[in-house]
Amino acid sequence: MVRTIEIKVGRSVIEANLKLAKQLRELLNAYSVKAYEFLGSPGSGKTSLIERLISMALGEGYSGVSIGYIGGDVATRLDAERIARHGVQNVQINTGGICHLEVPHIYQAIESLDLEKLELLFIENVGNLICPADFPLGAHRRVLVVSVTEGEDKFLKHPITTRLADVIVINKVDLADAVEVDVDRMERDARGLNPRAPIVRTSARTGEGVDKLYRALMGDEG
Amino acid sequence: MVRTIEIKVGRSVIEANLKLAKQLRELLNAYSVKAYEFLGSPGSGKTSLIERLISMALGEGYSGVSIGYIGGDVATRLDAERIARHGVQNVQINTGGICHLEVPHIYQAIESLDLEKLELLFIENVGNLICPADFPLGAHRRVLVVSVTEGEDKFLKHPITTRLADVIVINKVDLADAVEVDVDRMERDARGLNPRAPIVRTSARTGEGVDKLYRALMGDEG
Repeated sequence: MVRTIEIKVGRSVIEANLKLAKQLRELLNAYSVKAYEFLGSPGSGKTSLIERLISMALGEGYSGVSIGYIGGDVATRLDAERIARHGVQNVQINTGGICHLEVPHIYQAIESLDLEKLELLFIENVGNLICPADFPLGAHRRVLVVSVTEGEDKFLKHPITTRLADVIVINKVDLADAVEVDVDRMERDARGLNPRAPIVRTSARTGEGVDKLYRALMGDEG
Repeated sequence: MVRTIEIKVGRSVIEANLKLAKQLRELLNAYSVKAYEFLGSPGSGKTSLIERLISMALGEGYSGVSIGYIGGDVATRLDAERIARHGVQNVQINTGGICHLEVPHIYQAIESLDLEKLELLFIENVGNLICPADFPLGAHRRVLVVSVTEGEDKFLKHPITTRLADVIVINKVDLADAVEVDVDRMERDARGLNPRAPIVRTSARTGEGVDKLYRALMGDEG
C-alpha cells in the first residue's frame, strides 16, 4: 500500500511576481523585443538549444547586437561564456543557491543590455524542472525542455510545469534508443497535460529538429 | 564580455530547518534507524538506485518491515508504487509544487511508519539539484546522484550541493560513451569541490557499481 501526503503552497509571492511579469512584458513590447524563456532540468540541453537558435537567427540576418541572452545559474559563468562566443549581448545571473529567476533579476540584467537595438531575447532559467514554473519572467513564450535521458515519466511527474509551457521540446532524441525511452509515449503524456503547446523533437547535438523549433518560436507572437 | 550579477539568500528558514533536522536525527538514533537521503535532478536515477539497494538489503537478511522509504515528488505516486513492489514500508509525499522536502514533512511521513521495526530508511528528495541542498532532513548520509547524461559540467555548476554530499554517485556510466562524457573529468571536478565524500560510479540499469554504493552506505555511520 502507498500512503500519500499532500502539501499546500502559499500564493502571495507568486502573485506579486506575476504582476511584475506583466509590467516587464509591456516594457519589452514597447521596445519591440520578443522574449523566450527556457526552462528545464540541469543538463536538459537549454544552453545548447539556445546556441543553435542564435546561430540560426544570425544566419537569417539578425545581428549580434539585436540578440540578447540572460542566463541564470547557481554558480559559474560557463553558460554565458558559451553564448558570448556567438557575439551577442549577454548577462549571467548567479543566484548563489536560489533555485529560479524572478522578474526583479531580469530588470537588473536588462540594465546591462541595449534595449533599443535588441530584437530577440533568450532568457535561460536556472536548471530546475519545478521552481521556475510559478515565476514567469514576462517572456512571450515559455519553452519547456525535457530530454529523453531524464526518463519516460518526466512530463507525468511534472504536470504543473508541463501545463504552463507555450512550446514543449523533447531533446536528445538521438539517444532515445540507447536509454530505451519511447518518445511517442512521452509526447502523448505531454499532449494529455497540455493540448495547446506545439511539441518539437530535437537533438541539440546533431541539430535535428532545431529548424522546427526556430519556426515554432519565430511564428505568431502572443 | 560576460557581465555577472550575484544574488544573496536569506538564512532564517534554513537555520530553523537545521535545528529540526538535528532533533529528527536524535529520534532516528533513539530507534536505531540508519537514514539515507538521496538528492539529484529529476531522472538522475535516484528511485532505481534505491530499488537496487533495497533488493541487496533484502538479500542480506533485512526484512520488508525493517526497511522504509519516504519519497517526495511534486505529483504522482509512481515512485512509491515502484518501491511498494519490494514489500517495504513506504510513504509518498506530494509537495504540489514545493521544490524540496523539509523536516516537518519527514515527521509527518514517519507517523505512518513502524519505527520500532525499522532499521534502514531511504528518503528520496524531490528531483532537484538545487533547493534540497540547504534543507538537510536529519539523515545520517546525504547521497548526491548525478548522471552522466546531465552533462560533464554538472558538479562545477552545482558546487553547493556537491560540497554537502556525504556520498557522491555518478550514475548511468553505461551511457558515458553515447553522450561523449569524460567520467574521469566529472570525478575530478567532484573531488576538487568535495575532498571527503566517497565517489561511486554506478549504472542503476545494469547494476554496475551498486554493491560498492551499498558498502559505502552500510559502512561506518556518522
